[in-house]
Amino acid sequence: MAHHLGSNQYGKAENRVVRIYRDTDRHEIRDLNVSTALRGDFTAAHTTGDQAGVLPTDTQKNTAFAWARKHGVSSVEDYALALGARLLEASPAATSSRVEVDEYAWDRITVDGRPHDHAFVRRGDGTRTTIVTQERDGQTHVVSGVKDLVVLKSTGSEFKGFLKDEFTTLPEADDRILATSLVARWRYDGTDVEWNTTFDEIRATLLATFATTYSRALQESLYAMGSAVLDHRPEVAEIRFSAPNKHHFLYDLDRFGIDNPGEVFHAADRPYGLIEACVERDGASDPGTAWLATPGFC
Amino acid sequence: MAHHLGSNQYGKAENRVVRIYRDTDRHEIRDLNVSTALRGDFTAAHTTGDQAGVLPTDTQKNTAFAWARKHGVSSVEDYALALGARLLEASPAATSSRVEVDEYAWDRITVDGRPHDHAFVRRGDGTRTTIVTQERDGQTHVVSGVKDLVVLKSTGSEFKGFLKDEFTTLPEADDRILATSLVARWRYDGTDVEWNTTFDEIRATLLATFATTYSRALQESLYAMGSAVLDHRPEVAEIRFSAPNKHHFLYDLDRFGIDNPGEVFHAADRPYGLIEACVERDGASDPGTAWLATPGFC
Amino acid sequence: MAHHLGSNQYGKAENRVVRIYRDTDRHEIRDLNVSTALRGDFTAAHTTGDQAGVLPTDTQKNTAFAWARKHGVSSVEDYALALGARLLEASPAATSSRVEVDEYAWDRITVDGRPHDHAFVRRGDGTRTTIVTQERDGQTHVVSGVKDLVVLKSTGSEFKGFLKDEFTTLPEADDRILATSLVARWRYDGTDVEWNTTFDEIRATLLATFATTYSRALQESLYAMGSAVLDHRPEVAEIRFSAPNKHHFLYDLDRFGIDNPGEVFHAADRPYGLIEACVERDGASDPGTAWLATPGFC
Amino acid sequence: MAHHLGSNQYGKAENRVVRIYRDTDRHEIRDLNVSTALRGDFTAAHTTGDQAGVLPTDTQKNTAFAWARKHGVSSVEDYALALGARLLEASPAATSSRVEVDEYAWDRITVDGRPHDHAFVRRGDGTRTTIVTQERDGQTHVVSGVKDLVVLKSTGSEFKGFLKDEFTTLPEADDRILATSLVARWRYDGTDVEWNTTFDEIRATLLATFATTYSRALQESLYAMGSAVLDHRPEVAEIRFSAPNKHHFLYDLDRFGIDNPGEVFHAADRPYGLIEACVERDGASDPGTAWLATPGFC
Repeated sequence: MAHHLGSNQYGKAENRVVRIYRDTDRHEIRDLNVSTALRGDFTAAHTTGDQAGVLPTDTQKNTAFAWARKHGVSSVEDYALALGARLLEASPAATSSRVEVDEYAWDRITVDGRPHDHAFVRRGDGTRTTIVTQERDGQTHVVSGVKDLVVLKSTGSEFKGFLKDEFTTLPEADDRILATSLVARWRYDGTDVEWNTTFDEIRATLLATFATTYSRALQESLYAMGSAVLDHRPEVAEIRFSAPNKHHFLYDLDRFGIDNPGEVFHAADRPYGLIEACVERDGASDPGTAWLATPGFC
Repeated sequence: MAHHLGSNQYGKAENRVVRIYRDTDRHEIRDLNVSTALRGDFTAAHTTGDQAGVLPTDTQKNTAFAWARKHGVSSVEDYALALGARLLEASPAATSSRVEVDEYAWDRITVDGRPHDHAFVRRGDGTRTTIVTQERDGQTHVVSGVKDLVVLKSTGSEFKGFLKDEFTTLPEADDRILATSLVARWRYDGTDVEWNTTFDEIRATLLATFATTYSRALQESLYAMGSAVLDHRPEVAEIRFSAPNKHHFLYDLDRFGIDNPGEVFHAADRPYGLIEACVERDGASDPGTAWLATPGFC
Repeated sequence: MAHHLGSNQYGKAENRVVRIYRDTDRHEIRDLNVSTALRGDFTAAHTTGDQAGVLPTDTQKNTAFAWARKHGVSSVEDYALALGARLLEASPAATSSRVEVDEYAWDRITVDGRPHDHAFVRRGDGTRTTIVTQERDGQTHVVSGVKDLVVLKSTGSEFKGFLKDEFTTLPEADDRILATSLVARWRYDGTDVEWNTTFDEIRATLLATFATTYSRALQESLYAMGSAVLDHRPEVAEIRFSAPNKHHFLYDLDRFGIDNPGEVFHAADRPYGLIEACVERDGASDPGTAWLATPGFC
Repeated sequence: MAHHLGSNQYGKAENRVVRIYRDTDRHEIRDLNVSTALRGDFTAAHTTGDQAGVLPTDTQKNTAFAWARKHGVSSVEDYALALGARLLEASPAATSSRVEVDEYAWDRITVDGRPHDHAFVRRGDGTRTTIVTQERDGQTHVVSGVKDLVVLKSTGSEFKGFLKDEFTTLPEADDRILATSLVARWRYDGTDVEWNTTFDEIRATLLATFATTYSRALQESLYAMGSAVLDHRPEVAEIRFSAPNKHHFLYDLDRFGIDNPGEVFHAADRPYGLIEACVERDGASDPGTAWLATPGFC
């Protein structure tokens, strides 16, 4: 019963690279979490312990920091593209590289009504992210996104008309709170993209569509959000969502003779609904390995 | 070798109470994490299992939700005062109540340049908190604060002239990154306070002072921040800080022939410096039980 | 620029189901975290908000709890198979169900040298897990595994002979600590398996092989562990690993005139190496949808 | 409105020190999380930025690692006593040192029925901990304990006869699950203690008493556990508990025509009861600063 090495990848995860731009007194900050990986023929490392073809994860780490200085971080996508290309170049045995970068956002602290030059407060309204996969044969995939973006609507959401069976106890809801901690990832067709402005616009489109869509299910909200992005941004081939339904249960105060007209809720932790969906442009390009090793359905 | 019950408290921790104000189309949201506790003579519950004097934590939970509707949540302090008073009233065996409330902040989602009426995105720049302790004899203590407020200065910070011994390897630093995830708690003298505006002002004072103080140590920054609050807000008797020094180490790129003039840093997780300090107004009132059971030094 | 719904799934995640067997005085406990999902044609729910085909996640939750009583939990695999079949039956629009179950292990508390009948202490040495995917066309996939299994070797590990470039600073290591927090998942060929004894044997094989394999890289250890499982258990078609290299750096005490012959280490948090690899039996059955939506490479 | 520096402390938190004993082929491992702090007159550092009296937290870190080699780790208490004494010696401005050490437990991996010499699997059944405070005037306090010790009884627990008011909805329970994630800390009278065997005995006493005490409330269980420790270990002056009541709610299956005689439960996350209590030996020594800065009530 012989066996063999199947697919595999290795790299350095979660390098916390902070890049300060201090060319003028007005500093800029790029606060990153960088994970790199290489794929290819690494059979010897697994079967005979021969490391001759292995670029150590420690070297990948050094390269991630060096590239933040050498190449710079004009955007997470641009940096990931440059870093991934370098890793492929440095590792002949690798057939592809994958670079995932999260960016934490900071606001300038306000002093006397004006944003300060070099003091910042960390913002928590979602983390920008990108995953860049480059094949040695020339294919390049950029999947960007946002995660941990927590949104809530206090009305404009219902859930009714659903399938019932003998285990159904959920009442139909005409007016409920809808909340989620959104992960959205979209695949770009090509790399000729204004990364920062495009990200800002997609994020704004996602939020505005969430706000203005009357929701008959979280699924419908997500589909509307994905559709809006595809409608507005031709450079996006597809968009995928993973969205926990963060349940807010109306607290039963009737028992105490107190009415509760949609005002006091219990925000539950677990279990939660989990909705995952993909919206694809008709005739979109083949994703190839763009989504390989990325958590989330599709 | 006889023994006895010493101090004790019990309650319901982390009630996730969400209160929506929907009197007009423009909804307001108060997103709270509420923990209640009672102290007093509960010896029988511990030694003989007699629960006759014990108001169950389940009842405390119901009360926390009911009070969000009955009394409302104009501020976390006002709500905590009302809830704590009710718990004392409902529990004759208790000699004091303690109510701790965290509030998560939400921004309105922007649609077409305007803030939406009922759609929100969660902000992550620090959590407002209060701890209200009420003694049956009439003493009331309000300790409010902010936590998880992550701030960073990319210059204007040094650390040198420190004590050296044979285990010293830290080089002196003329210009370093200073960053912390701040917990600040301040004790009010009395309850005749405009809770919301005062909180906003203290938070702004903390941030602005952090930004504008040249720092020769995190200790000096904290002391300046505490002093500024005491100078501006006469209703504050003392303020306490717990501040991890979130180290950002300059990455050594010289090894690769690349210069690094304060631009690329590694943000480390552990270990971290931990600075805890209290700034007290001269002649401040006695804190009594205000700080009892609250994590953090002093 | 038309678009359409791509792949999608929805369900209830992280139902914390605890099943006590109390038929005799000697109780048994099964402590589970159950996540269910359905896939199929749910286009209407996404595009028109029509929920007629949607079995709510709340109903899935009720079913998960009901099945713990009705069907019981002789093993996580057996329970997941029954629950998934039920969900498919209850949801005509679904073409497949996916049930993921984690089980937390408990030991009996020892009293006077004997294990107690109904008092337990939770063990933390790894979580047993299974993912069961059932297609309406009859295909059934069982992927079982263990996660959060933290192992360490204090010798018998080297790392040298690796590829070098201008960013290489890692010294070669003849004797280092090797540690990981293992996730291993293996796919069974068929369902005619003694689930509990097979799990125990595979877990023991993984641990013993980790212990006894001289390691020239974490990759080599993983491959040896996978090979050993395939050699001993013919019912396993393939096994996949995701293994962070939890670095233990020898602390430099030479600076202080203290030698450190492999005795004092700093256990670092981030970054960490991340090794992912799959070992497949030659001629193994087609995995089909067995791994769909499961985090981890391959 | 002048003000001044109040109490304060500073140090290096969470040094992850791993000490291997490899004098023979049978290695031993001590896996520690070490936090150090100094207190004293550090006013200048806060008010004028003068660091001349400040032993940097970086130096404290180096010392923690050096002492693991120089002094060794025969027990967490012995190591903490030595390290704290050194820090006081190295820091003339300090009036006291505080060293907190957590120890993660590892089991040997079993190979062919025998424990392996140098391969280990991490155990998760509670973390041993100690807090050693040393005053320059000679007072020494040792508070040891265990945390994250998760225990559960599937019967032998009731909760009834409690105080009722208009917000009471909890039914009385004759037979329920009782579960908690225990933190227990006990203060030793003096330092002439066999640290390792005493810890093992106290841990065993806590578990056995939890198992065998019929519980009319978590409070009663805790008091019995504390009493048992004080009865058996004369070197313990007092013991304090912080114990979340991890609620297991009987799932209502009656709605589906399925009985549920105490067999299927939902393990809830939040909110949870939180019980904190102290059991003191009559006439115990004065705790002094033993508990300063330690989270938890009393």
